[in-house]
Amino acid sequence: MEWKETLSRYIDLTNEALSTYTDIENGENKQVINAMQYSLFAGGKRLRPVLTLAAAEMLGGSAKMALPYACALEMIHTYSLIHDDLPAMDDDDLRRGKPTNHKVYGDGMAILAGDGLLNLAYEIMLEDAIKQDNPKPCLKAAHTIAVAAGIHGMIGGQTADLMNEGQFNQVAEPSASTLAYIHQHKTGALLAAALTAGAYVAGATEKEAEAMKSAGFALGLAFQIQDDLLDLEGDEEEMGKPVGSDLKNDKMTYPAIYGVEASHEKVRALTDGALGIFKGFGSTSAFLQSLATYLISRRS
Amino acid sequence: MEWKETLSRYIDLTNEALSTYTDIENGENKQVINAMQYSLFAGGKRLRPVLTLAAAEMLGGSAKMALPYACALEMIHTYSLIHDDLPAMDDDDLRRGKPTNHKVYGDGMAILAGDGLLNLAYEIMLEDAIKQDNPKPCLKAAHTIAVAAGIHGMIGGQTADLMNEGQFNQVAEPSASTLAYIHQHKTGALLAAALTAGAYVAGATEKEAEAMKSAGFALGLAFQIQDDLLDLEGDEEEMGKPVGSDLKNDKMTYPAIYGVEASHEKVRALTDGALGIFKGFGSTSAFLQSLATYLISRRS
Repeated sequence: MEWKETLSRYIDLTNEALSTYTDIENGENKQVINAMQYSLFAGGKRLRPVLTLAAAEMLGGSAKMALPYACALEMIHTYSLIHDDLPAMDDDDLRRGKPTNHKVYGDGMAILAGDGLLNLAYEIMLEDAIKQDNPKPCLKAAHTIAVAAGIHGMIGGQTADLMNEGQFNQVAEPSASTLAYIHQHKTGALLAAALTAGAYVAGATEKEAEAMKSAGFALGLAFQIQDDLLDLEGDEEEMGKPVGSDLKNDKMTYPAIYGVEASHEKVRALTDGALGIFKGFGSTSAFLQSLATYLISRRS
Repeated sequence: MEWKETLSRYIDLTNEALSTYTDIENGENKQVINAMQYSLFAGGKRLRPVLTLAAAEMLGGSAKMALPYACALEMIHTYSLIHDDLPAMDDDDLRRGKPTNHKVYGDGMAILAGDGLLNLAYEIMLEDAIKQDNPKPCLKAAHTIAVAAGIHGMIGGQTADLMNEGQFNQVAEPSASTLAYIHQHKTGALLAAALTAGAYVAGATEKEAEAMKSAGFALGLAFQIQDDLLDLEGDEEEMGKPVGSDLKNDKMTYPAIYGVEASHEKVRALTDGALGIFKGFGSTSAFLQSLATYLISRRS
């Protein structure tokens, strides 16, 4: 299981760098830094940073050069969870078995902690890009992440999600196309950006970046459907959160629309698509192939 | 009053560019774009973009080259107001005489609209920087804005403000140093960044950028004290919002700590400091000198 050692190395690198990035001056702004650290170190799987570091190494770059972008992605992912969990959004009290940010720090501070993480992500990327003799590859990575995080990406997906949860005073008919939009934008965009940003930092051509983006969207949708399936079939203890909440909340999911068997089938087909792309990059893609295969069989 | 024509030109340029930047695809993400546009065009004075465009022109650059950074600053300023107005923060129903974002779109969508504006600010700056043959001056501008907007700047100030409003379960003693921290970070940092970013885009030296930063912090503090004074002495109709709310909310203000007369004196002294710096740049600083003088006499 050599790939699991590589996985550990990527996760350790990410955690060290995230610690360094948030080990900062500690005066009147102490509470927001505490709140940011709380969610940043609340047991995230570090999937996005791992994809970024792996993509960079696959294309002949180093994990180190991709670290600022990997950490920025994890900060953006974490901020989105903090804001999603707020009473005004999904109103969740638990995440990964721990109280959500606003349950610990209050709604106002949770809003600021999310804002702080989103902004810090850009501070880190810009600080890295400025240092480069040729900043273009890093700028492409940062721009890819920005587009994926914004209204054309993740925030667009969150908007569609919120509009369809009946929390807003307009009722939209849940439909397969809306569900596809939500999955592709809320989860897919950032996972695709993780692979693409790592590729750009390592000097990828536009064609290579485009291939990584496709692989990322396929993996992202597979990952999201797998999440929905785990909410139906998973083990509460392994998951660290209650299962069945999607059904309870009348949430639109892939299994709810297409059925469980078709959903498992779709996860396999999407993963095969991503594997095909990785294989096209040759033997340096061994880690990403193993990771993609592993993601299908995960239990949490 | 030639300077007022220049002011109108800067404001028109900003409004046109903001319209273009938010005139975007309109599908499942429609509501968040509506909410973003609502606050972006709710009557803001465009002070930050004006400072950026003026600083760029003062140093021999063009307003056009500084526009992406000017618009980014206005988006960041607007997002901070949307989030500040939320029930979990200041809980304000009116801003510039209009219902606040969350009163129109709901708390969840207001959170997303703020997130969307913050992220769009970086999308715009990165997209501009990528296009440059030499992106370094633009990267310095973007990085300056990022640092000023984040936990070392505006979000730090919002944190201190929130911690001292008794909305969190720790009570901090209001003190002059905390008030100074809040003013300098919540308002000063972004105004200083507005002047500094404009200077950087136009190719300013570090020494010139440093001078503009000092002028911006002086103007920022003067502006904030003037705001506090207007809340005490202003006219409700001219202001477009209720006056006396700081007293009612037991909010820490400069006049509350130092008295009204000393506060007026401080506004004049700070403005003189900024004027001195602008004068050092010679005749091209005429507009910024007029603007600084005007800000003292404003009624809203």
